[in-house]
Amino acid sequence: MAKEFYSDLRLGILGGGQLGRMLIQEAINFNASVSVLDPDENAPCKNLCDHFEVGALDDYDTVYKFGKRVDLLTIEIEKVNVDALEKLEEEGIIVYPQARIIRLIQDKGLQKEFFKQNNIPTAPFQLISSRDGLDNAKLQLPYIQKLRKDGYDGRGVMKITNENDKAKAFEAPSLIEKWIDFEMEIGVIVARNQNEEVKAFPCVEMEFNPEVNLVEYLISPSLLPHDIQQRAESLAIKIAEDLQIVGLLAVEMFLTKDGEILVNELAPRPHNSGHQSIEGNITSQFAQHLRAIFNLPLGETQCRTNAVMINLLGESDFQGLAQYVGLEKVLEKEGVYIHLYGKKYTKPFRKMGHVTIVNDDRAKAIETARSVQDILKVIA
Amino acid sequence: MAKEFYSDLRLGILGGGQLGRMLIQEAINFNASVSVLDPDENAPCKNLCDHFEVGALDDYDTVYKFGKRVDLLTIEIEKVNVDALEKLEEEGIIVYPQARIIRLIQDKGLQKEFFKQNNIPTAPFQLISSRDGLDNAKLQLPYIQKLRKDGYDGRGVMKITNENDKAKAFEAPSLIEKWIDFEMEIGVIVARNQNEEVKAFPCVEMEFNPEVNLVEYLISPSLLPHDIQQRAESLAIKIAEDLQIVGLLAVEMFLTKDGEILVNELAPRPHNSGHQSIEGNITSQFAQHLRAIFNLPLGETQCRTNAVMINLLGESDFQGLAQYVGLEKVLEKEGVYIHLYGKKYTKPFRKMGHVTIVNDDRAKAIETARSVQDILKVIA
Repeated sequence: MAKEFYSDLRLGILGGGQLGRMLIQEAINFNASVSVLDPDENAPCKNLCDHFEVGALDDYDTVYKFGKRVDLLTIEIEKVNVDALEKLEEEGIIVYPQARIIRLIQDKGLQKEFFKQNNIPTAPFQLISSRDGLDNAKLQLPYIQKLRKDGYDGRGVMKITNENDKAKAFEAPSLIEKWIDFEMEIGVIVARNQNEEVKAFPCVEMEFNPEVNLVEYLISPSLLPHDIQQRAESLAIKIAEDLQIVGLLAVEMFLTKDGEILVNELAPRPHNSGHQSIEGNITSQFAQHLRAIFNLPLGETQCRTNAVMINLLGESDFQGLAQYVGLEKVLEKEGVYIHLYGKKYTKPFRKMGHVTIVNDDRAKAIETARSVQDILKVIA
Repeated sequence: MAKEFYSDLRLGILGGGQLGRMLIQEAINFNASVSVLDPDENAPCKNLCDHFEVGALDDYDTVYKFGKRVDLLTIEIEKVNVDALEKLEEEGIIVYPQARIIRLIQDKGLQKEFFKQNNIPTAPFQLISSRDGLDNAKLQLPYIQKLRKDGYDGRGVMKITNENDKAKAFEAPSLIEKWIDFEMEIGVIVARNQNEEVKAFPCVEMEFNPEVNLVEYLISPSLLPHDIQQRAESLAIKIAEDLQIVGLLAVEMFLTKDGEILVNELAPRPHNSGHQSIEGNITSQFAQHLRAIFNLPLGETQCRTNAVMINLLGESDFQGLAQYVGLEKVLEKEGVYIHLYGKKYTKPFRKMGHVTIVNDDRAKAIETARSVQDILKVIA
């Protein structure tokens, strides 16, 4: 890179939420000069960067003009204007992950077709252009309908179990996917830099909150048999290499009851399933993303100890000025790290922070995490 | 505290250097709203806080007015206007560490007298009001002359070995102190909160660069015999309790060749001798300082592994726009964490950053640190 990351290189981040915030916490160590674009004037990154701009991430002109201010552009959310990113790439701005990858991953239909073309195991699927497509579905019930675009944090996903559900189905381009009664959801985050160095983080196990389809609970490292973990990690590395991505790639996978691994979804950025790496691994996912996009040697990814991560979601019955009940009590406990996201207002299931619990005794880490979950609540 | 640290509490930091910067990196996790005062318009904290103000830290009006903006005021440097802090305390602003403690520690003469009054072992000393006082010194040569005020980062300290040195001695209120031919310099950082909970970090061993009297090298944990470490930790706790400090207290000590521990100096704030705690201990000194001043339960201080910290000082022959030679090479190494301080310009021996190396194999950590020291240079 012509400019030095530690001095004159201007880094732009599209999105100023918690992922950007944690990325900035790391970027400080690298002296990066950071600009952030976000539609929310009170975004979590607001006062933590050299330049904060309020603007729509899906607007061509806004993204284009913002991009022209910086040397290297990255994202913390996929839903950005990719036409502007392609134009910026043409004009010599470095965009990592590359615009074509963001375009691919924005569309869950294209994502699935990419899996198919590259022999990446994934649940059988079918693309449909509207609800009517369900009538000609070749898949048997039950299946999952997913909007091709704009699904996020569990939204845009629906289980179709019977004929009655079809009337409530999304009326938009979507895909339907065989319902996988999986054993466990697992995740691998992989990083790749311009020098084509690739490193995967150890596999983690996730537990979802079925009500809102958000990660509720994550355990690192996984205790699955070595060969399963190795397959998951190899698969994630293969995908990063097939894509030739520069930056982080989070790969969410299903482990089926008969030991098969199916790729569920990709995210080309730091991801909720890697938050435990801040305290749990030698290199955090945020430091690794910066190393990758700055084309620095990638850091080691091994676990330093057992880590359990729980998302701190707004309680379902509360909306308004956030209050954190039980914070002092959980800080009395062993190995508890609190990360609040600087959001003034809570609403049901809003991600307000996360807590990581580390312990050399895995059972102890899980026990502490359960009790943190019982004690700590975000209300208004 | 009437206000909640995670929402409406406004935290002010006097000083916007690297210590403030690393404190902010932690404060982000607590949702703290941070204001910073520093005389340098390009201070390392400049773009990382809600409010950054340029102003003199030793000016009464500037500090007073800044203090009135916040609910809780802390410091990252002792050289601040204490009269203003006392006035602010009277008017209900919380100042941690307390103004009286900053006043005491600002004056190395008062510090030494405090040690004497509280039976805290320290090198024999004598206060003098000017160079002439050396003629009536009861201490035998060689001794150390220290300015009572404004010494910092090795400045204001001089060894007087013979009669000729006396002519070059400082012409200002100072103290002279018996020259201690110590075995090793050790440090303990202790935290105390308003609830009177007190916790010490494990003892660390320091190696100084004799040319500039700055910590060059720090190893954690110490391998000294258990009883010595325990004495050092108990001594640090006693001092924190004698002072009734709220916040962090860094205690620098000499271990003499016959196993005696003598207290050298205090700093009522995060300290260079605790930087390794970010990656090396369960709680970092910065998180601990915040827990202490927010009156939260203190975090555990145990070492997670061996950590060696080296200061990244500007090379002696360079002045100007900073360049970091060898950064990529050291990032290839195992367990290397780089912390750059966001300083645009380097000058000889300026603290530009630090590097922490962790490794479960202590010899390996030291070996890597030595090689990082050889490779990584700050030039212009």
